[in-house]
Amino acid sequence: MTRWTLPPEQIPSAWFNVVPHLPSPSQPPLHPGTREPVGPDDLAPLFPMSLIEQEVSDEPWIDVPGEVLDILKLWRPTPLQRARRLEQALGTPARIYYKDESVSPSGSHKTNTAVAQAFYNAGEGTKRLTTETGAGQWGTALAFAAAQFGLDLKVYMVRASYGQKPYRRIAIETWGGEVVPSPVDEPDQPGSLGSAISDAVRDCVGRDDTHYALGSVLNHVLLHQTVIGLEAREQLGQAGEGLPDVVVGSCGGGSNLGGITFPFVPDAGVRLVAVEPLSCPTLTQGRYDYDFGDVGGLTPLLPMYTLGHDFVPPSIHAGGLRYHGSSPLVSSLVKDGRMEATAYPQGKVFEAAVRFARTEGRIPAPECGHAVAAAIDEALAAKETGAEKVILFNFSGHGFLDLAAYDDHNHGRLTDEMG
Amino acid sequence: MTRWTLPPEQIPSAWFNVVPHLPSPSQPPLHPGTREPVGPDDLAPLFPMSLIEQEVSDEPWIDVPGEVLDILKLWRPTPLQRARRLEQALGTPARIYYKDESVSPSGSHKTNTAVAQAFYNAGEGTKRLTTETGAGQWGTALAFAAAQFGLDLKVYMVRASYGQKPYRRIAIETWGGEVVPSPVDEPDQPGSLGSAISDAVRDCVGRDDTHYALGSVLNHVLLHQTVIGLEAREQLGQAGEGLPDVVVGSCGGGSNLGGITFPFVPDAGVRLVAVEPLSCPTLTQGRYDYDFGDVGGLTPLLPMYTLGHDFVPPSIHAGGLRYHGSSPLVSSLVKDGRMEATAYPQGKVFEAAVRFARTEGRIPAPECGHAVAAAIDEALAAKETGAEKVILFNFSGHGFLDLAAYDDHNHGRLTDEMG
Repeated sequence: MTRWTLPPEQIPSAWFNVVPHLPSPSQPPLHPGTREPVGPDDLAPLFPMSLIEQEVSDEPWIDVPGEVLDILKLWRPTPLQRARRLEQALGTPARIYYKDESVSPSGSHKTNTAVAQAFYNAGEGTKRLTTETGAGQWGTALAFAAAQFGLDLKVYMVRASYGQKPYRRIAIETWGGEVVPSPVDEPDQPGSLGSAISDAVRDCVGRDDTHYALGSVLNHVLLHQTVIGLEAREQLGQAGEGLPDVVVGSCGGGSNLGGITFPFVPDAGVRLVAVEPLSCPTLTQGRYDYDFGDVGGLTPLLPMYTLGHDFVPPSIHAGGLRYHGSSPLVSSLVKDGRMEATAYPQGKVFEAAVRFARTEGRIPAPECGHAVAAAIDEALAAKETGAEKVILFNFSGHGFLDLAAYDDHNHGRLTDEMG
Repeated sequence: MTRWTLPPEQIPSAWFNVVPHLPSPSQPPLHPGTREPVGPDDLAPLFPMSLIEQEVSDEPWIDVPGEVLDILKLWRPTPLQRARRLEQALGTPARIYYKDESVSPSGSHKTNTAVAQAFYNAGEGTKRLTTETGAGQWGTALAFAAAQFGLDLKVYMVRASYGQKPYRRIAIETWGGEVVPSPVDEPDQPGSLGSAISDAVRDCVGRDDTHYALGSVLNHVLLHQTVIGLEAREQLGQAGEGLPDVVVGSCGGGSNLGGITFPFVPDAGVRLVAVEPLSCPTLTQGRYDYDFGDVGGLTPLLPMYTLGHDFVPPSIHAGGLRYHGSSPLVSSLVKDGRMEATAYPQGKVFEAAVRFARTEGRIPAPECGHAVAAAIDEALAAKETGAEKVILFNFSGHGFLDLAAYDDHNHGRLTDEMG
């Protein structure tokens, strides 16, 4: 066997909340003006109350609404695959498993939280959503989800990606969303996730019918992604494995990483590895501090690893990982030594991604390529020692909408410091 | 339930051969010079002997080799989905099911035969393959399969698509294939599948290490696609349905159509519907006759519906359906009244495709959009009569690599006679 599926009724019926399992208590976000902990009322202009409750919850499990399950069933549970052909090509004794989130309608894990956020907003009367998107994985996912609940959507797309990745812009429009390049007021700037968040928050705050939706970083977003790790745990059991030795995920804001790793946090023997781009090394070279989530300083101050909220990373192809900060939950785990972090240069990521495509078939998104590269290195390390290690990584999204990046790689036009 | 999966061990272990079930005996291909039936030796410069044997076989079942199953298991069995959200949007009493072939590594059904053809070629010592591709679904599928068996690959891509669809060219290169626009000798011509076949056959015939691979039309190609219909039959049973009332597939050369419909040919009560583009109306307006498979007149003469081998269809976005002929097996079924044929204009196809994307989530390839449009019309007809009809169609591929076409549609730049 190389592939484990589960029937639709085995989609997890509750999300896993990592907060009670953190080594040290989580610190609250602070109000940007008063520097006091923010309360629900401070967040109400941005989010519906049910998401705010999830954001501050310390309940160990939170039920997934039936209406959300009904939509997740369009593609979930996703398959767990054993990468036997890659193992053979590497000559490793390790067993490599990947959870394939690329089979969602929008092609990445982002759809998991997009559906939940659209559901709660629609239920509380929101008519319109605003959001940011980097490479476009989040924007496409939310466009799909908004269409399911009849919500209008405006997407502020990081200008560097808006030019580089027209296909994701078109996909958003095909699902009915509106897309504009960001920063809206500075047409010469390539932008970043931080500046696009500022644009989307500004658009939202002034309008009663509008809420804002974030595709990563916040607790409730990572919560919705834990279906990935919960399913993978079940499927590893089906495959006859116990716990994995190591779980690997790429990390920008932290959502696919949190999704695959959080359900393994209580298992002390399982190593957890975050993989980020060397050009935006938040966890490996940033400082742990309170900082704004956006460039404009409009969001609450979050306790996290950060490169500074005014840091503008180079225009690498993994646009979804170009974020100055990281999820407070991921940051807390890294700070306390429960999670490791490593950084990869772009060239090495694409070499690994092509190797994966030619053995396992699927072409990874550049973001996802970071996890592929680190999983390959774990397998090669196991070859050195002869250890029959079990490696699990999250195949967070396919690269069909990122092929311009592969064209650069295939024809030698890609550098580690892509401008 | 809205989704039925099968475990990997339930991939069909034998292909279904429709030849013994044809209403009238199949007619042989003729040698282009002598006009006598071609023998195995005539085809040997092009194909390995095991594929030639399959081409002329009248055995009812042909075993799928274990090595082929091992690769198909990377994504098969594919899910059968019930399109409940589309049904609700249409207000139809019909139950619409679609077989989702878009989950393959290259994103379409083409991978099913690509793996089999690469396997048989590698087994008989072929080192290099040549082929044609239209929109690029076939070229990407064969590039993936060739990489699995270490075969070199040269793809002659219809020039209209080469310019319109750079992403599929890049995907082929990422899997290790070489791509050139066709016709190679006429750089001002948009080309067609027929001219690209001529280029690929010419390249093959002169070289001992090289064979040619065709992505549709021929008996052995359609044979390899019957895993689609065989799985769907099993999954409809799981869903509590008996036989479907109607099975719908889009038709260019006929391979995805044959794949989903052939296993239902013996079931007299099941309607079978081929959907083709109005701009290339082979089955609905062509003549049934012997004709060449290619523009250059290099291939054997095939008994089929044809618009004439020198017919150059307009550059519609469904490049995979721009073929002057049709599979002899499909043609025979249409001629004898066992299969219906209908033709759709491009604008109506994209309207249906967007409707599908906004309800069911997945964005269809333009080729696949033809089947979506006809399935919707079947469901609307059922609404008129109140019939609780069961409709099955083949979701043959996703449109992530065809989004430029959606951009034209979304912004009103697409016409029914796209030049």
